[in-house]
Parts: sequence; C-alpha cells; structure tokens
Amino acid sequence: MYIEKIKSPADLKQLDIKALQLVADETRSAVLNRVSKHGGHVGPNLGFVEATVALHYVFNAPKDKFVFDVSHQCYPHKVLTGRASGFLGDVEDMNAISGYSSPAESPIYDNFEVGHTSTSISLATGLQKARDIKGTNENIIAIIGDGSLSGGEAFEGLDEASELGTGIIIIVNDNEMSIAENHGGIYKNLRALRESKGECQHNWFKSWGFEYKYLEEGNDIEKLIEVFKSVKDTDKPTVVHIHTEKGHGFKPAVENKEAWHWGMPFNPADGSRPAGPSFESYEELFSNWMLKEMKNDPTLIAVTAGTPAAAGFSPAKRSEAGKQHIDMGIAEEQAVAMASGMAKGGLRPVWTVYSTFIQRTYDQIAQDLCINSNPAVINVMWGGCGTMNDITHICLFDIPMLTSIPGLIYLAPTTCEEYFAMMKWAILQDRKPIAIRVPSNGVNHTSEKIETEFSFESKYKVVKKGSEVAVIAAGSFFQKGENVVKMLAGKGINATLINPRYLNEVDKQTLDSLKADHKLVVTLEDGCKDGGFGERIASYYGTSDMKVLVGGIKKDLYDRFDVNKLLSDNRLLDEQIVEDILAIVRA
Amino acid sequence: MYIEKIKSPADLKQLDIKALQLVADETRSAVLNRVSKHGGHVGPNLGFVEATVALHYVFNAPKDKFVFDVSHQCYPHKVLTGRASGFLGDVEDMNAISGYSSPAESPIYDNFEVGHTSTSISLATGLQKARDIKGTNENIIAIIGDGSLSGGEAFEGLDEASELGTGIIIIVNDNEMSIAENHGGIYKNLRALRESKGECQHNWFKSWGFEYKYLEEGNDIEKLIEVFKSVKDTDKPTVVHIHTEKGHGFKPAVENKEAWHWGMPFNPADGSRPAGPSFESYEELFSNWMLKEMKNDPTLIAVTAGTPAAAGFSPAKRSEAGKQHIDMGIAEEQAVAMASGMAKGGLRPVWTVYSTFIQRTYDQIAQDLCINSNPAVINVMWGGCGTMNDITHICLFDIPMLTSIPGLIYLAPTTCEEYFAMMKWAILQDRKPIAIRVPSNGVNHTSEKIETEFSFESKYKVVKKGSEVAVIAAGSFFQKGENVVKMLAGKGINATLINPRYLNEVDKQTLDSLKADHKLVVTLEDGCKDGGFGERIASYYGTSDMKVLVGGIKKDLYDRFDVNKLLSDNRLLDEQIVEDILAIVRA
Repeated sequence: MYIEKIKSPADLKQLDIKALQLVADETRSAVLNRVSKHGGHVGPNLGFVEATVALHYVFNAPKDKFVFDVSHQCYPHKVLTGRASGFLGDVEDMNAISGYSSPAESPIYDNFEVGHTSTSISLATGLQKARDIKGTNENIIAIIGDGSLSGGEAFEGLDEASELGTGIIIIVNDNEMSIAENHGGIYKNLRALRESKGECQHNWFKSWGFEYKYLEEGNDIEKLIEVFKSVKDTDKPTVVHIHTEKGHGFKPAVENKEAWHWGMPFNPADGSRPAGPSFESYEELFSNWMLKEMKNDPTLIAVTAGTPAAAGFSPAKRSEAGKQHIDMGIAEEQAVAMASGMAKGGLRPVWTVYSTFIQRTYDQIAQDLCINSNPAVINVMWGGCGTMNDITHICLFDIPMLTSIPGLIYLAPTTCEEYFAMMKWAILQDRKPIAIRVPSNGVNHTSEKIETEFSFESKYKVVKKGSEVAVIAAGSFFQKGENVVKMLAGKGINATLINPRYLNEVDKQTLDSLKADHKLVVTLEDGCKDGGFGERIASYYGTSDMKVLVGGIKKDLYDRFDVNKLLSDNRLLDEQIVEDILAIVRA
Repeated sequence: MYIEKIKSPADLKQLDIKALQLVADETRSAVLNRVSKHGGHVGPNLGFVEATVALHYVFNAPKDKFVFDVSHQCYPHKVLTGRASGFLGDVEDMNAISGYSSPAESPIYDNFEVGHTSTSISLATGLQKARDIKGTNENIIAIIGDGSLSGGEAFEGLDEASELGTGIIIIVNDNEMSIAENHGGIYKNLRALRESKGECQHNWFKSWGFEYKYLEEGNDIEKLIEVFKSVKDTDKPTVVHIHTEKGHGFKPAVENKEAWHWGMPFNPADGSRPAGPSFESYEELFSNWMLKEMKNDPTLIAVTAGTPAAAGFSPAKRSEAGKQHIDMGIAEEQAVAMASGMAKGGLRPVWTVYSTFIQRTYDQIAQDLCINSNPAVINVMWGGCGTMNDITHICLFDIPMLTSIPGLIYLAPTTCEEYFAMMKWAILQDRKPIAIRVPSNGVNHTSEKIETEFSFESKYKVVKKGSEVAVIAAGSFFQKGENVVKMLAGKGINATLINPRYLNEVDKQTLDSLKADHKLVVTLEDGCKDGGFGERIASYYGTSDMKVLVGGIKKDLYDRFDVNKLLSDNRLLDEQIVEDILAIVRA
C-alpha cells in the first residue's frame, strides 16, 4: 500500500503517473472506509481525489499554501498529509481526525479552520498580501466548489484577488452541484464554459480580470498535473476551472449526488444503510405541513439557501411545491433580503436555516428585514447543544444574536403542537418579522390546549403555579425544566414552571408577579448564556431582592464536545440544577 | 417653478423634453439647496438627477417599483414624489424628510428603508417573485451604483435575479466612484464596458445571463428616456448600465468627488465651508499614529472597506501608506477574512469600521477570524449614541454582537492615551483577535500613567476605591461615571469607580471583591443594554445579595433621535443615574 508510507506530500514527488493513480485509488478507498464507518462528506471528497493527488504532486506544501473552501473536499488532502490514520482502520481511530480543515490538527498543512462556505478566496487573499509584502514567492491556492461560489463572500474575495493583481491560483472545482442542485445566474456561465471547453464568448472570470484555464477531465491525474504545472508560480490572478464528477468512483454517490453529499455510515459494498429506528423529525413534519398549507395559500413560499434538507424539502417535495419553494444556493444574505421583499410584495415567505448559518445574515435581518417590519418568518433549525458539534458548526449562538436585533420577535416553542400553532400565527400575521426556534430535543407532543393567537408583546405562560422557586425553561430546555420542577417537588419545594415562549423581550408583568412569593428565579436556555435570554431576566431583577440563577452554556470555542460533559461542565444536568437551587434557597 | 407643482410623477408625463430639462435643473437646485443648508449626500444625488426625471417619466410609480441601493441617490426621487418641501426653503423644513429611502415617510413611493449598501437587487428580487406569483405585470427596477456593486449581497442578488429569469431592470449607475475610489476586479470590466460603449469581449452581466444595454450619456434626459423605454415591460432580467458624472452640475463636487460624496453645510456659490472650531479627532490621531508606526514596521497594514475616512485615511495619507493601506471597496466580509489571512501570514492588519457596519461581518468575525485565533485588530469607530442617528445607521449594537462571539477580546478605552496603549498592545501581540471600541465622546486626555501591557483575561481597573456603591463605567461612558461618582460624593456616598476596559467577559475577581463592602453595582455602557455588557454583570451577581443597576439604552428601533432625549428616556442623564442610585441605597 502506498498511502501508509506517504508521510508528507514530498513522498509523492518521486512517483510516476501509474503509481500516482494507485495512490489515488487507495486514497479513494480510505475515504470510503471512513465515511462508511464514521459518516461524513462523501460525494465532494470522492470527486476531488485525483485533483488532490495532482495538487500535492505539482505544488510544494507546506511552502505553497492551500485554502479549502468549506473543506467538504479536504479528506484526500488529510490522507496525504500525515493523517491517513483517520481514514484507515476502525472508527475508533477516526475520531482524532476532524472532518474539516484544521490547523489545530495540522498546523503545517492546514491553514485555516473552515466549515462555513465561500470563505476560501478571501482568506487566501490575506496570504497573498502577506506574501507580497514579505517578498516571498510561495503559491497561494484557493480551492472552491461551484456550489460555494454563490455566497457573497466568495464574490468579494474574487473581486479583491483580481484587484491585488499578483499571483493567486483559484481552483474552481465544478462538479455541477451544490449540496443540492445549483441556483443562480453564475451557473449559466459555468455551463457555457463547460460546454464550450472554456471558449464561450462571455467568460465571467476573464471579465473580472483573471487568467483562465479550463480542464474538462477533472478526474484525470495526468491532465490535472499538466494544467496545474502550467499555472504554477504564476504572477497573475488565475482561475483553473476543472470539471469533476461528484462521488467519482462510487456508483451510488454518482447516481444520487444530493443524497450522498453527506451521510451517516453505510455498507460500502452497495451503499445501503441499516434501517434504524424511525423517529418523527421536524424536517419531515414541517415540510409536510407546509405542502398542505401551500395548497390553500398560493402566497406561502418555502425559502431555503443551499440546504433544502433543513426544511425537509427533498427533491420530491421541492417538485411538489413548484414555484412555492425557492432555493437561493448558498446565499443566506439573499435569502433574508428576498424574503423581506417577498413579504413586502404580499407573499408569506418562511426561510428555514440551521442555527449555525443564521449568523451569516446579521445585517440583512437587522436592515433588510427588521427596520422594514416586513412579516417574513425565519424557521431556525437545530439551535442548541444536541445537534452539530464541530467548532465551525456550533449551534449555540442564535439566541444572543437574534435577541439583540430590534424589531424581531423570537419564539421558542416547547412542543410540536405549540410549534405549528406559532408557525401558523407567524405566517398569517402581517406586522412583524418573526423567528421561531424549532425544538432540537426531539419531537415532544402535548395534549394540552394550545393557544392559536399570540401577542406581539412578550407573554410568558405559567404552566404550573407554585412558590419560592420559579423555573423559566425556554424551548428545547423546557422538558429539562419540567424534570427539575418534579425533582424539586420530591425535595419539598413546590416550584413554579414557566414556558416563556418569547426570547426577545422579558415579560415584565409575569416577572413582577413572581416577586410576591418567590425568592429565586432559575432560567434555562439551550444555548450560549452570554448575551442570551436569562441575562435579561437577571438584569431586570437586578435592583430587586429576587435572586436569579442563569442556566445556559458559557460562551467559549467548543469543538466536537460530548453533550453530557458540556451540560455537566455548565451545571446543566437536571440533578446539578436541583442541587444548585437547593444550595441557594436553603442557604 | 415646475417642481413646486409636481405632486407626483404623473405630473411629469405631459411635459416635453425641454420642460423635463427644466424640472431636472430645478431638482438639482433643490438638492443643492438642501445639502448646502442641511448637509447630506451631495455627489451621488447630483449625478442622478437626469436619470431620476427620466425614470419617473418612463415608468409609472407607484405601480412600478423602484428600489434604491444605499439610497444616497434618492433625493431627486423625493423631490418628484411629493417631498419637495424637504429640499426647498429653509433648514427647519428639511428635517421632516430623511436622507434615505423611507416607506415610513412615503409608503407609496419608497419601498424599503435603506441605508446600508448592496441590498437593492436582493430586495427587488423579492418584489419580482411576488409579482410573478401574483401574476401582475409591474416593472421592478433596482438602482445600484458601481460602488455598491462590490458588496457580497449585491452579487447574491444579481445571481438570483438572473436565476428567476423574469423581468427585472437593474440600473447600474456608473459614476466611476464608490464613496472613495473603487477597488476590485469588477471595475476592470465596468471600465472595459465604458471604453467599448458596452461592446467589449467579456461582458460580466451577459456572462451571468442578463440582457444588457449601455448608455454613455447618463446625464442626458432624452437618451435616458430612450434607453429606459427600450427595456420597459421587459420579461427578462436586464441590466441598464449608464455612465453618469458624480456631482454633475456643481463644479466643486465634480472636481473633488470623494470630498463631496457627503458633507456638512456649505456655501453653494463656491463650495466653501466656514472654518468651524477645530477639535481633535480620533480619525486624525489614528491615521497619524498608524503612518508613524508603519515606517518602523512594514508588516503593519491599515485595512478599510469603502470608508477610508473612518480611519482618517485621506487620499494623501493613503498615498503615503502605499502598500500598507488596503481598501476593499464596500466589502466588509472580505475585509475581515482577508485580515485574518494577513495575520495568519505574519502581517499586523488593523481594520477600521464604523459600528453600524460591523454587523455586516458577524459570520466572518466568528468563523474566519475567531475560531482561527488570528491576531487581527478591529478598530470600531463611532460606537455609541452620540454619532449617527438615522434608523439605518444606529451605532448601538456592536457591544451585544461582538461580546457574544467566542474568542474575541473587546476593549473599551476611556482616554486617548489608553486607546493608543491598547492599540499598540493589540497590534504587537500574536495570540488573539482583538477589537477596540474607540471612544465616541470626543478625545479625552489623561496624565495618569497608562499600562502598556494588557491581559488576555478580563481585568477591570479600580480607578477610585470607595464603598457601598460601585460604578462600572465603560468606554465613552467612563466620563459619565466620573461625574456620577463626583455627584454621589456630594450626597455623602463615597462610591467606587471602575474602568472595566474589557467588554467581552466579566472580571470575576474584581466583582467578587466588591461583595465585601458594596451593596449596589451600577453599570454604564454607551450602547444597547439588551445582550450587552451590564447584563453579564447582573447575571454574575444573580445569586448573590449584590444589587445591580444596568445602565444602557433599551433595544428598540430608533430613528433620528435627539441624544439628550434618548439618554433621558433611558434614565442615563447624570442626575437621573444619581437619583436612581439614591433611591436604591436609601430604600
């Protein structure tokens, strides 16, 4: 086996084409071994195996600098830069190697921690400028997929790379796919360039001042080496547009590119996955509900930005929704601004987005949406500690962010029934933008009567009236609040339980009413507590005698955390909360 | 006079070219009357007078929808849509009419509140989609300057407008200028298009699938009418690229376009401004300091994004800095990511940005910069209530935003000397990204000894040790804290005064130490208190006996507020703070 012997890219340099092809085959097997046992990004990595081998053959990392966009395609690079252990062997060996570009893991070969899209060219221009100032001569190579090109930051990066005017090589890895299909006018040009082998009349990259090379055979090592050699050490901003096949070499991934972009473990022989236990999911419930509502309301529009799966909008459901679903490609800013425009124009848009990506749209939510008071709805998925845990994909920050933007209502339903009641109300009202934090702790049901009208002012719901201690448990931590209140009952404390429902403002009336017969308010939120929900309550009570225990997760850089340890470190396990409450009220 | 009689664009329809030209001349005079008496955007509005007359002559607002980008060019539109009163007469009449597109002011003719850049096309695509779903047939017209085209959201909007495939008209108002000069590869194409009268080989807009028209004479009403008529009611995404002259018709503004982009009142006869009292400014101090430091450190780089004036980098200073200053055009995302890349590559970048625009970069600060721990410096200008006050430009939200991003240190100097000590330390350290909130309450000096080394952990500075009450007064509210402490002394309270210096985390040790002999902590911050600095402190003390009074500005949508009223409404006048303190400690 070659790849076990390759400790660094230098070991590739002496190999001939035939041997390099074997390295590629082994790398592909290693990638498949990892994703089949561990899960991860399948299609983008498989399609970039040959290009990675050729890049490391032609260029001289670590002197030459690679910057991977979103880094869904960095596994082959990891295999060839001393991290094959994360791809061979068993799943236990794999956890030490992350699924993303990471200098924490390889300070030599990985230049940036990357997981959000469209950043590579901008980051690379910084290395380019540093090289130019220092007067060194390394190659700076940004690697970006066609899907990632739709994000605004990528355009800004391209614009600046051309302006700098010195050598930078931008590899456009065009596999004709984003996570799902591509959307946007730029894809008309990529198609025209592919179909004309780079010779069509209007070339976007040339129009912006780039040197341009096209390679049709993006999975052919020999041809890749040739094109990379032709641009090596260039002193001009240069785009190398290579046409690759997403999922190359693994039939199921080639045949169903969207399903095989990322996935859980599978049988590498045929791509089958064991049928696991089936759970209800909000993705499924939401998409079904929307499709039903859409039939009665042609103005209801499901909006996504490159991740239609976040909304449960599978290809079949997208097709069923027709013009009533719109995906922007990976362009969250556009999603928010367009939703605001749609709402202004009389439509009822609902944009679904993962918590970690909402931070790509602070200004658009504040400016395009909220100061205009247009009644678009934002459906925030996976907010909380029980979802994604890579450092690049932490879902703990949506509460501080969204609750500091004036003009936005942020609702936190606690059950499935409450969620859809809030969603329906949010869609039908025409006064304000409303965000809803979909519970991320599984689908909980209630048989209690749910209100169907909500207020524009914060109004907490007192679920159980007690005294001495009040637990205000928001969204996906509501059930934790229920448990805590039950456990307190066992300790002789008849605590009040409150579902606050509104995260954006405190309900002063309810908070004031607690002063009469409570001495401690406990807040629980499934997210970063710094700048979050509970601190507002602590501040509100600041000059009173009420004590407040704010429960949430301390602001910090977390990476691949264990949920229970995270909860425990933040004293958020049910028994810890009870313990802390008792320590205060029995002090 | 025509324009006094024009109550709506319909009144233009019967006029002939000669009369339309008179309308344009009167509109220009009205614009000049306003900006000379009231201040405002000069060059962009003067250059767009003829185009606005032609647009309103050809299209039928309010049925046809105009969306202005950044709306620096909307004054002529206001003159022609019933708001001439804001441009004629005296300065008192002008305050009722804002300097930006505003549906609050004209729900009929203004479609969006707009003041940040690069949003028009995205917003317009929402109206386009709404029209398509509803099956109506109005024209949707986005008006965007060449400078605004460099922002990522504009690209995302263009990309989607082409994807939608139906009629939308994008007027590219090319005056060869951003606020300052343009930066970016796209300007190579705009230049080539201008020089070839729209016929050059590689046309960016055509490459993305747009129909394209070029008009060289962008200040010629007759030709403008002709080109607008030729695209009216189009069913295709269409770009009309018009070449206008920024400042057209007012010589000083034509001759010095950057200085006349926006300005304070002036003498319309010759453009002279009365020499006012001269104040020290941080813009001036910072740019001088940087230029001096740069001479000793070739790796020190001043970064700006379309607003070099924020850093005091006048054309002469930009020229003096040479390669050590880089402006991105209006591309804040690029600025942050590139700064991170530069820091990674061994440079020492300092990005200067106005508080209101930092929110365009949440994700880049969190992802490109902070999870990478690259030691770039962010110099935040004008944060606080005493700077910009239009609803689109509020500078109150940088503290909640930046302090909720893990991995970022946010410093708040209180004097000039402390500011430069912090800046120097931030530039020389190589461990972390650091933001500094430049005081916005004028340049205060101190003769006290300032530390030159700062900690990576929050460490408050106890300026005066007292008891009973502690006032923790951050950044530009520090002098307010000093006043309050002095006034308290007059009431027999020997209060402690603390300069917290760090906004991002509480200093637990100092807070704990106050418990011994204080019963009230008062926090003062010049910004939105919801999610801000003081709430962290209230939360930290939540389970103790310490009372906390959080002083800051309530989260809300504010527009053209009076500072004293705002302070008073939030009980932030010095005497109100004292009154509230006394009410608590003497209760």
